[in-house]
Amino acid sequence: MTEVIENVLAQRYASEAMKAIWSARGKIIAERRLWLAVLKAQRAAGRDISDDDIIAYEKNVEVVDLASIAAREAILRHDVKARIEEYNALAGCQHIHEAMTSRDLTDNVEQVQIHRSLELVRNRAVAILRRLRDRTNEYEAMVICGRTHNVPAQATTLGKRFAMWMEEFLCAFEHLESIIATYPLRGMKGPVGTQQDMQTLLGTDNALQLEVVVREHLGFGRTLVAVGQVYPRSLDFMVVAALAQLASAPANFASTMRLMAGQSQVTEGFKEGQTGSSAMPHKMNMRTCERIGGFLNILSGYVTMASGLMGHQWYEGDVSCSVPRRILLSDAFFALDGLFEATMTVLDEMAVFPAIIERELATELPFLSTTAILMAAIDKGMGREDAHALIKRYSTAALTRIRQGEDASVFSRLLGMDSSFPLSAEEIDALIVPNTGLAEDQADTVMHFADLVISRHGAAAGYNPAPIL
Amino acid sequence: MTEVIENVLAQRYASEAMKAIWSARGKIIAERRLWLAVLKAQRAAGRDISDDDIIAYEKNVEVVDLASIAAREAILRHDVKARIEEYNALAGCQHIHEAMTSRDLTDNVEQVQIHRSLELVRNRAVAILRRLRDRTNEYEAMVICGRTHNVPAQATTLGKRFAMWMEEFLCAFEHLESIIATYPLRGMKGPVGTQQDMQTLLGTDNALQLEVVVREHLGFGRTLVAVGQVYPRSLDFMVVAALAQLASAPANFASTMRLMAGQSQVTEGFKEGQTGSSAMPHKMNMRTCERIGGFLNILSGYVTMASGLMGHQWYEGDVSCSVPRRILLSDAFFALDGLFEATMTVLDEMAVFPAIIERELATELPFLSTTAILMAAIDKGMGREDAHALIKRYSTAALTRIRQGEDASVFSRLLGMDSSFPLSAEEIDALIVPNTGLAEDQADTVMHFADLVISRHGAAAGYNPAPIL
Amino acid sequence: MTEVIENVLAQRYASEAMKAIWSARGKIIAERRLWLAVLKAQRAAGRDISDDDIIAYEKNVEVVDLASIAAREAILRHDVKARIEEYNALAGCQHIHEAMTSRDLTDNVEQVQIHRSLELVRNRAVAILRRLRDRTNEYEAMVICGRTHNVPAQATTLGKRFAMWMEEFLCAFEHLESIIATYPLRGMKGPVGTQQDMQTLLGTDNALQLEVVVREHLGFGRTLVAVGQVYPRSLDFMVVAALAQLASAPANFASTMRLMAGQSQVTEGFKEGQTGSSAMPHKMNMRTCERIGGFLNILSGYVTMASGLMGHQWYEGDVSCSVPRRILLSDAFFALDGLFEATMTVLDEMAVFPAIIERELATELPFLSTTAILMAAIDKGMGREDAHALIKRYSTAALTRIRQGEDASVFSRLLGMDSSFPLSAEEIDALIVPNTGLAEDQADTVMHFADLVISRHGAAAGYNPAPIL
Amino acid sequence: MTEVIENVLAQRYASEAMKAIWSARGKIIAERRLWLAVLKAQRAAGRDISDDDIIAYEKNVEVVDLASIAAREAILRHDVKARIEEYNALAGCQHIHEAMTSRDLTDNVEQVQIHRSLELVRNRAVAILRRLRDRTNEYEAMVICGRTHNVPAQATTLGKRFAMWMEEFLCAFEHLESIIATYPLRGMKGPVGTQQDMQTLLGTDNALQLEVVVREHLGFGRTLVAVGQVYPRSLDFMVVAALAQLASAPANFASTMRLMAGQSQVTEGFKEGQTGSSAMPHKMNMRTCERIGGFLNILSGYVTMASGLMGHQWYEGDVSCSVPRRILLSDAFFALDGLFEATMTVLDEMAVFPAIIERELATELPFLSTTAILMAAIDKGMGREDAHALIKRYSTAALTRIRQGEDASVFSRLLGMDSSFPLSAEEIDALIVPNTGLAEDQADTVMHFADLVISRHGAAAGYNPAPIL
Repeated sequence: MTEVIENVLAQRYASEAMKAIWSARGKIIAERRLWLAVLKAQRAAGRDISDDDIIAYEKNVEVVDLASIAAREAILRHDVKARIEEYNALAGCQHIHEAMTSRDLTDNVEQVQIHRSLELVRNRAVAILRRLRDRTNEYEAMVICGRTHNVPAQATTLGKRFAMWMEEFLCAFEHLESIIATYPLRGMKGPVGTQQDMQTLLGTDNALQLEVVVREHLGFGRTLVAVGQVYPRSLDFMVVAALAQLASAPANFASTMRLMAGQSQVTEGFKEGQTGSSAMPHKMNMRTCERIGGFLNILSGYVTMASGLMGHQWYEGDVSCSVPRRILLSDAFFALDGLFEATMTVLDEMAVFPAIIERELATELPFLSTTAILMAAIDKGMGREDAHALIKRYSTAALTRIRQGEDASVFSRLLGMDSSFPLSAEEIDALIVPNTGLAEDQADTVMHFADLVISRHGAAAGYNPAPIL
Repeated sequence: MTEVIENVLAQRYASEAMKAIWSARGKIIAERRLWLAVLKAQRAAGRDISDDDIIAYEKNVEVVDLASIAAREAILRHDVKARIEEYNALAGCQHIHEAMTSRDLTDNVEQVQIHRSLELVRNRAVAILRRLRDRTNEYEAMVICGRTHNVPAQATTLGKRFAMWMEEFLCAFEHLESIIATYPLRGMKGPVGTQQDMQTLLGTDNALQLEVVVREHLGFGRTLVAVGQVYPRSLDFMVVAALAQLASAPANFASTMRLMAGQSQVTEGFKEGQTGSSAMPHKMNMRTCERIGGFLNILSGYVTMASGLMGHQWYEGDVSCSVPRRILLSDAFFALDGLFEATMTVLDEMAVFPAIIERELATELPFLSTTAILMAAIDKGMGREDAHALIKRYSTAALTRIRQGEDASVFSRLLGMDSSFPLSAEEIDALIVPNTGLAEDQADTVMHFADLVISRHGAAAGYNPAPIL
Repeated sequence: MTEVIENVLAQRYASEAMKAIWSARGKIIAERRLWLAVLKAQRAAGRDISDDDIIAYEKNVEVVDLASIAAREAILRHDVKARIEEYNALAGCQHIHEAMTSRDLTDNVEQVQIHRSLELVRNRAVAILRRLRDRTNEYEAMVICGRTHNVPAQATTLGKRFAMWMEEFLCAFEHLESIIATYPLRGMKGPVGTQQDMQTLLGTDNALQLEVVVREHLGFGRTLVAVGQVYPRSLDFMVVAALAQLASAPANFASTMRLMAGQSQVTEGFKEGQTGSSAMPHKMNMRTCERIGGFLNILSGYVTMASGLMGHQWYEGDVSCSVPRRILLSDAFFALDGLFEATMTVLDEMAVFPAIIERELATELPFLSTTAILMAAIDKGMGREDAHALIKRYSTAALTRIRQGEDASVFSRLLGMDSSFPLSAEEIDALIVPNTGLAEDQADTVMHFADLVISRHGAAAGYNPAPIL
Repeated sequence: MTEVIENVLAQRYASEAMKAIWSARGKIIAERRLWLAVLKAQRAAGRDISDDDIIAYEKNVEVVDLASIAAREAILRHDVKARIEEYNALAGCQHIHEAMTSRDLTDNVEQVQIHRSLELVRNRAVAILRRLRDRTNEYEAMVICGRTHNVPAQATTLGKRFAMWMEEFLCAFEHLESIIATYPLRGMKGPVGTQQDMQTLLGTDNALQLEVVVREHLGFGRTLVAVGQVYPRSLDFMVVAALAQLASAPANFASTMRLMAGQSQVTEGFKEGQTGSSAMPHKMNMRTCERIGGFLNILSGYVTMASGLMGHQWYEGDVSCSVPRRILLSDAFFALDGLFEATMTVLDEMAVFPAIIERELATELPFLSTTAILMAAIDKGMGREDAHALIKRYSTAALTRIRQGEDASVFSRLLGMDSSFPLSAEEIDALIVPNTGLAEDQADTVMHFADLVISRHGAAAGYNPAPIL
């Protein structure tokens, strides 16, 4: 028999908790539980179903034989019908799925998987927030050379840099929470959404009551009212887009970590026994950080799939979305879950090399201070644009000389010698200090915001990832 | 001189209101107003700026000479510097932009454009909701052949079908409102986000106060705290994804309208004088509905662009995102605006042909009733899956015969003759009635939800689109 | 232990042949064969490697213990190093991978997987072409109502419609063949691509000769010359884009099949025992055709992933592409393979219902003939645009009346009565005939093109898919 | 009146030559020329059209009044009909467009625009190749620190790095040429593609002959045979994907340039008068290189749009693709054209700072040489994996010490002292030399390939871009 091809995202990268939600067996059990909840509600509404039959279904809920179901599907060419017949055969009666259509089962169960996965993502995000908060705190006062366009710009602190990523992550987190709070269930609406069959079977009041029972069984706060065969696929897009958004701050963090590692300023950590390169024994690569960016790339692909499913629904529904949704929903969650595991690992294991950071800062400080010099010149009465032009001229000249071997003090010497500039070399040198502005106050504020979230979700913050590959 | 290539989305499809937000002139004026707000706050904080200079800037706010600015940029190779020098030249002094970096200007002004556009989108969405609500009401009781997989499934009502689209649209609308409510401003944070320059210029308290002045001037409820050079680009992704989501329900509406038109059941409307096809004089094409789907496709492309900008920020920021953002932000809004104009037009001008709808219903009714027949058979004691198998056998046989010319009654005749089936042909015929379940109640409920939104945004609901091309 | 999450695309949809190429075991064996080829070339170039050691490696090529390798990787955190140590442990010596870096192994083996998969895709495409050709032939003369904008337009033949899809498929096929012919191998270039280590080990001439040996061992016609650590990822994009292009014609075919099924004109086939709907026993859904469109949607997502990997290479290479490539390469091939299996199945099992097609044609014929009437009017001296306007007026009026119950002859009566129109009702009626122009000649020509391909790949044309789910 | 919103890609970034192909006026003239070619062919086939009428059309070909056409379209709601009536009104007769449908005009003219744009892209690509070749030559022997994972790996040369980008670009170029060579024209096929109307008007032979005339008039080598209303949209996808592929090598070049600039090793050039940052006078940003990556991001979005248009064609065609194609075709060409202009500018203006490059090389050389040391140890009889482990241990230790301030020689000292390692510190030091392997030979070979292309397209190689913003 042929080897099984595994889902790489699930098997290599996702956590056990996420895999449990999306496993074939887990889904079948969730379906059976939904059937039972409906069955009991139908009996409560007067349908003639014996205790023995209920018990027969109940005791077989977890008797899952995937091969038997597959054999049935090969004949029926209908996956839900195969699972109905399997469960009926196990129980020895034919009560389940009455007045239901396939999507009453599958759409609702998939939404449960989505909802639970969103909650898991929320919890993992809290665990990341806690780590970002701790690193912000740890490096709050560590002065670094801030860069824009990859070029030294102004001094800042490493803690503030972490606060920057944390604040972006908090925006995505808040967005996620609003989606979890409002995400609606399709409910038991029948083939074209009119609830006709359930109404016929149970009467109007009982049919409406059954909706409430199902919603509560599945743990939702809201039910959609006027769906067709399926819930709107734009909800899938909203969910997957929110996942991609959550990946952005970790990927920005990882990108800058990779850049800093290129200058030996940080490492993502290196486990005893780990190999960096099979050819070059000295290499300590940022492979986990690279991977984080890779997961975001993958999520972008699922966003494209999800966006391509919107707006193409024919009438009350078709399932041209069926195969894509089998892939993109679970796999988007696996990808983000893997990204989160990787991010936590890097946040736990990373190290900073202060000596290298200080060396860079010393070299770049004259240039990091040009705005302070500019403003001092304005204060002395020089026009802003004239001062800008002069500083630009001498800093450019200084950079050229430094590239040829001179040291960083050349800048203040050159600029101070120009008589049209209102500051002397000594006055300029006095302005060449690491000024990090409000960096620490900002970091404090964002840590406070993070603390509010963490304290709301205390248990989740303590999660530790399994060792990653 | 070469002809100007126009922005097709803006010039052919978008409304004047949306174009005004994103015009080059409009942006420059918004920038100058921001500079002035900052300048006045700086003067209030003690900077020495004369009344005459303030007045000189003020009276030139709307003196916009795009060609002059372009000429400056060609030399400076820096668009913001070009606009600073132009405005200073007009005013005859050099006060603006002090302690500011380019992104203090551009990111904030772009966020104002985004925020205003989101509000415009919200208003237009209300105007669509009002129309969907009215069509739901108009067709609430019109029975139609519901279809899934494009195949007749069960009876429903046309009003419920509109309610289905309306509810999807309401989900996207609610999502939009939560984004508008929480969308945060970058604020005046300086080159690497530390507020260093403004703090140096004004002192800590005044620098913090300036943030408040700017936020209020720009009409935002929140400001980000610890950004770098730019606000997180995942906010752009969140916005563009929300726009795409809003396009889904109109596109689903348009897809089904196109399908129904293929059976002559509806038309999107046909203006006196309009040509359907340059070759085939009889054609009345659904070109506006086709266009609606096209706009969603375009939005998917901008979603890809926006997702590709996330996670790639280097250090405190770079502007590899600069050119894509010049395209995707305005154009995503233009595309959705065009989609909304088109959708309103179709909702206003569409017509339904009841005679055709009734003819289809009559033909398909026996098959639309198979679930009712199934449930009646179960009630008579037959097993669900056995009954399902029998009905399937005879409906399949009946369809084959109908395709060869027999009429629809063949189904009940064949099924009724099978002695293992517990219902006679007459009993079956009695079940062949158009049963629309709770379709009308559902429509009522969703109309109620829409009314709540409409009443909150009364003025917006009355908007009428300009004639479309 | 936790259940394995399977790769859905592979396990549910892809063929055994495609799965074999991408299986974990298959890849490991391919790697070992590559190591052996290099080892032998190194020995031929003078390296001191004993016969016994070569034999030890050879006899362990297929001794694949995935669990043991996984255990090693968990410690080493480096997948290639884990596989090296496993293979060395099996053979009891340490010769393989000398002067090689990881990517010398993995990039080349992945390219072999890609190349073999492309050839398999090519063969399957031939099998589809053969079926499209046969259906074109079968329906060559069957007149149908051609539609544009989903609205009746002119008569055509069903065979010509198949020829349309076949010609689009031929364009994609030709593109595929040009890619297969030119797709280049990375080769053994070492860590930064300079061949330094192999040159040091073997000398320049032997290092160059080794490239030739490896290329021939792997079955490629060309080798890249100046790569870095990896081959350019734009090659991956080119390949995945070509796969998506191949999906277009089958998806267009499937879309129109779904539309035709909605009017009972075709079925994709219905197996004995198959269930259409678990709720509605009569339903015969076009689920396989829906699925075909779904696969294309999935491919679009992989195109986005692949496009996001281009242009982001840092220096001689990084592996931020690593995780995405583990997903998108194999899965894009699985998706297209599944699409092909589904398409062949539909082409084999579909049926057409001529009675329904003829009924539609009879109803629409007056309108399908408006261009002929227009041209006859021009021939009688009327201006083109005046004639167009008049025909439009009366066809619109006729359609309105038909929608209210009149029959199709109303059109010629109304138009013929207008004295400004140069044709009488009788003359108009004589023009109302099914004119399919050059449809059959076109079909003949495209069948001829297909035959040329089929005869070049005779064996491949005979492939039959396994039964699909 | 409202300000015109310009197409930013066209107006800010694209070249005049590309804009000319896609201007509104240019398209209208191309349409009129096509009408005239058809008209003359129709007269040659016997249609009664006077010399005066032909002359009237001819003399008005370039009389383009966009406002008048727009006014007509506002009434007709059909853009082609508006342009027909405008041209007829100018000529004073109604002969054009006879037996044609809109898509006979628009699809063919759009394909001409695409074909001409592809040729322009090809020519610009040659001009880039020429520059890449010259830079490869210039830096062929300049030794640099090669990096993988952003970490120093082995020595290479800067010329080889350019050759790497050049070879990737050559792959995309070759792909482009194969597409240009085979890209097929839709031709004059009529509303559903059967050529019915043209056959009716002219007879079969003349209708076929007309196809040849049109193809030759439009400069194509092939015509499609069995299209419907439109040519297959998968051809658009193929074209846009090829454009994105061409952007990859320039974007990889730009990414690495940005990285190198962060270490002061290169600059993209800085024009006299240019401003780097409005806040920080010293900044010399890599904004053009950043922009190059931005253009690729934009192209990815158009790829998504184009992929979303495949597979959704209903019957013989619909124009749900109409609005997306108005955007994505022209704008994909504008984006790539802008990217090419930017790339040529950087290649022309960039500068390298050898002193900085040498300083990095000196620091990293011990580590760049670890593979050479590894191989020497193997030569002395040590097992490969054992040697790898030892070198890893001491290089890691050395890096740690260097980060704390020691100098680079610590590595050979530590390793040489370990008695289990077969080389002394002196022997190790002798291996610490910049070994660039076959880097220069590789560069020579790729330059030779480039020369072959350049010599085939001599004139194109000499193109110089206009100054960029």
